[in-house]
Amino acid sequence: MIAQDWLAERARRTPSQRAVECGDEALDYAALDARVGVLAGALRDDGIAPGDVVAGCLQNGLPAVLLVHAARRCGAVLLPLNTRSTAAELAYALQDAGARRLVHDDAMRDIAVAAADVSGVAASAFDALAKRDAKPLAPGDADPDGPSSLLYTSGTTGRPKGALLTPGNFFASAVASAMHLGALPTDRWLACMPLFHVGGLAILWRSVLQGSAVIVHERFDPDRVNHTLDEEGATIVSLTATMLSRVLDVRGTRAPARSLRFVLLGGGPCPGPLLGRARKAGLPVATTYGLTEATSQVATRPPGADPASGAIPLPGTEVRIAGEDDRWLGAEAVGEICVRSATVMRGYWRRPDATGEALRDGWLRTGDVGRLDAAGGLHVLDRRSDLIVSGGENIYPAEVEAVLLAHPDVAEVGVAGVADPEWGARPSAWWVPRPHATADAAALASFCRERLAGYKVPSAFHCVATLPRTAAGKLRRHALGETPSFP
Amino acid sequence: MIAQDWLAERARRTPSQRAVECGDEALDYAALDARVGVLAGALRDDGIAPGDVVAGCLQNGLPAVLLVHAARRCGAVLLPLNTRSTAAELAYALQDAGARRLVHDDAMRDIAVAAADVSGVAASAFDALAKRDAKPLAPGDADPDGPSSLLYTSGTTGRPKGALLTPGNFFASAVASAMHLGALPTDRWLACMPLFHVGGLAILWRSVLQGSAVIVHERFDPDRVNHTLDEEGATIVSLTATMLSRVLDVRGTRAPARSLRFVLLGGGPCPGPLLGRARKAGLPVATTYGLTEATSQVATRPPGADPASGAIPLPGTEVRIAGEDDRWLGAEAVGEICVRSATVMRGYWRRPDATGEALRDGWLRTGDVGRLDAAGGLHVLDRRSDLIVSGGENIYPAEVEAVLLAHPDVAEVGVAGVADPEWGARPSAWWVPRPHATADAAALASFCRERLAGYKVPSAFHCVATLPRTAAGKLRRHALGETPSFP
Repeated sequence: MIAQDWLAERARRTPSQRAVECGDEALDYAALDARVGVLAGALRDDGIAPGDVVAGCLQNGLPAVLLVHAARRCGAVLLPLNTRSTAAELAYALQDAGARRLVHDDAMRDIAVAAADVSGVAASAFDALAKRDAKPLAPGDADPDGPSSLLYTSGTTGRPKGALLTPGNFFASAVASAMHLGALPTDRWLACMPLFHVGGLAILWRSVLQGSAVIVHERFDPDRVNHTLDEEGATIVSLTATMLSRVLDVRGTRAPARSLRFVLLGGGPCPGPLLGRARKAGLPVATTYGLTEATSQVATRPPGADPASGAIPLPGTEVRIAGEDDRWLGAEAVGEICVRSATVMRGYWRRPDATGEALRDGWLRTGDVGRLDAAGGLHVLDRRSDLIVSGGENIYPAEVEAVLLAHPDVAEVGVAGVADPEWGARPSAWWVPRPHATADAAALASFCRERLAGYKVPSAFHCVATLPRTAAGKLRRHALGETPSFP
Repeated sequence: MIAQDWLAERARRTPSQRAVECGDEALDYAALDARVGVLAGALRDDGIAPGDVVAGCLQNGLPAVLLVHAARRCGAVLLPLNTRSTAAELAYALQDAGARRLVHDDAMRDIAVAAADVSGVAASAFDALAKRDAKPLAPGDADPDGPSSLLYTSGTTGRPKGALLTPGNFFASAVASAMHLGALPTDRWLACMPLFHVGGLAILWRSVLQGSAVIVHERFDPDRVNHTLDEEGATIVSLTATMLSRVLDVRGTRAPARSLRFVLLGGGPCPGPLLGRARKAGLPVATTYGLTEATSQVATRPPGADPASGAIPLPGTEVRIAGEDDRWLGAEAVGEICVRSATVMRGYWRRPDATGEALRDGWLRTGDVGRLDAAGGLHVLDRRSDLIVSGGENIYPAEVEAVLLAHPDVAEVGVAGVADPEWGARPSAWWVPRPHATADAAALASFCRERLAGYKVPSAFHCVATLPRTAAGKLRRHALGETPSFP
């Protein structure tokens, strides 16, 4: 049931259903399908054949949506590039993936052309392709297990690797999400996070499969998110914790968003106080743990569930915890989160070694640390690579951050290990103060000491203006040490 | 993602979610799972092994729900028997299927025991099995392509045949329905039609997969349906046209049911006036064409769609129209409806010939007559076996019935062919008058002549008290001639 051109099938079945809204443009499925056919025809005229890698360097917008579907129609493998990358980073991904063509928009032209030159890949402006008004390419069947997308993971260590996702991965992810959180043809999913990340890309495929609409914001603007929630009938919005916090900051005393089913909150842990603020504002939150290698969601706590409960693995997705010796651990034991599911990637592009390390006996080793409670709920403690080992004790930065976020003067905070001759490493904190904050390092240390074992209390507190984050809003803990702090 | 014991997985994931309500009993998924484990243990103690056929002769109720899931947990093939059958009919199905055991409730005991005696199949009272408090059977994996259920089709001609459905069929059906009509964990699906039909059985599997509740009525009672719609928050209800008509008859001036997403209307064509009545009463209707061999829905017109539009094939389901010479016909041409989908049965149990006739080149030949409009919408004209050929002209009874139903004095009507020496066959009508009807045969014939080609006008009008229908509410046109009419 999945070996088809989903967009073409959807357009045939519900042509006048709203497909996408972006700025002043709104397309129904028939119109989206027609424009995708023309763009795919232009790519085919340019020599793109099934199996070729087509890269996109596009800011959020209709061109990004069209390219996703046009690549599929061509039978090509989509390589969505991070628009915040340097030209060197782009060139690395283009070469590593063996891309045949790079499609860019006006805003990304200079950097895209530079990267294309370095990597020897042909570059095309999106507008030029679209304006050529090519003969539309007819839809064909797709191999559900063939390559569909290459997503370079932000990888906190080592060089980025391309996670290879298939149509079957995206289908399984959409079905699992629908069976977990529900899906309605009347859904309107707001995508204000980058479409080049799996969390954004998966929204596009889900919407086509369930016949609903996606609302694309060109960039994250908290006021505009509130407007879309309140006035444009968004039923779902994908946000990170930082984004949600900013949306709430400017939300004021607006009434609860009537159409909103839930905020899908991913990209890292969600502090308890933030959940409380969202609840008070009438925005139900579904916190999710997911990763690129599993086509987004792995486990999601449904909206309305007890905030102390774990995230529930999606239907058809199994989660286990592995110990240091690779044996499966029981309930409550802390270890590496492992995932088995039809949503798990086929592997890393041209990296048999890394693939073999990540996929063992059908299980994806996520490198993340967590535990399963007795009820089977998943509690994510940390990304393993961020683990601070201090005097033989393990310190999970997220735990320390959660404590500090409960302090009224702390707006944002990141914790990372700093080498220490005596203890191996000691935790340090980088914090962004709220306006009119009065707390100093001594006060924060005292606050922590009341709530944490002594070895977990940061040995230094750096007051900073902003925290380093990825384009998806994930905290880059390894870059904390480079953050300029206030004197 | 489908090779699991869905109920066990669901109970592990959302144990406290409401699973089933029946009369005064309400079970969450943990409780349902526990009771299913005990029942499956009792069946296993009685020698039921994977692959064995377990028959149920149970009226709608919790026991019927439990047996469906317990058979799956045993790895057995479920044979749900029609409780309106005669003992001879039951015995035929038991023997044809090679059943190992027949489970019955108190109400069905006499007829079930008689059928078991004739067929030499061991019979067990449901209560005796449940009370034995057996050691619960642990869930195992199911082969998604293995046999799951045997549903004997009502077959208007020939002896009944067992359509063999797999877990994969039910999974594909649930996913397709969710992606077409939506699915929410908060759904509450009212099943007041027999659970031994595919339309009822599919509700049970859908609910488990999407984690929602099913409300089971022991029998169809229009007042109780209205109560459940208005006071118990049903979001979906499956009805036939006759059932809907009766629900509307007693609905009075109640306000629209606020929680109701739609009425799934199947089991035969829906007269236009009935759709209008439902719309006025605020009950949105999704008319569906489906059949046992395709695990229920094939094409469904979404609620709110133009009543003149066709039914839209479900995602992943292809519909084509075949001509007399087996070639595919184009838009608007009338021919046999053919279906290709992951929802299509594996075949008829132990009937290679009938299977070969029904399944050709991966396409299910439904024997039903219809056309696809230019937009791809399916219009079902008739069940082919009911076709009346009169003087070389084809007459589709449903078309004639639809005309007569528009007459204010006609409550229900059936049309069938009666042998005629001159024309081969002539249509006759059997009609149920509304209270205070004044029309006679001459008036009805005149009414038809104004709206139909002459050869389609029934040559006789028999005024009757009721029409013969199957347990699922389908008109049995072949039995019309045996209906006693008013003088």
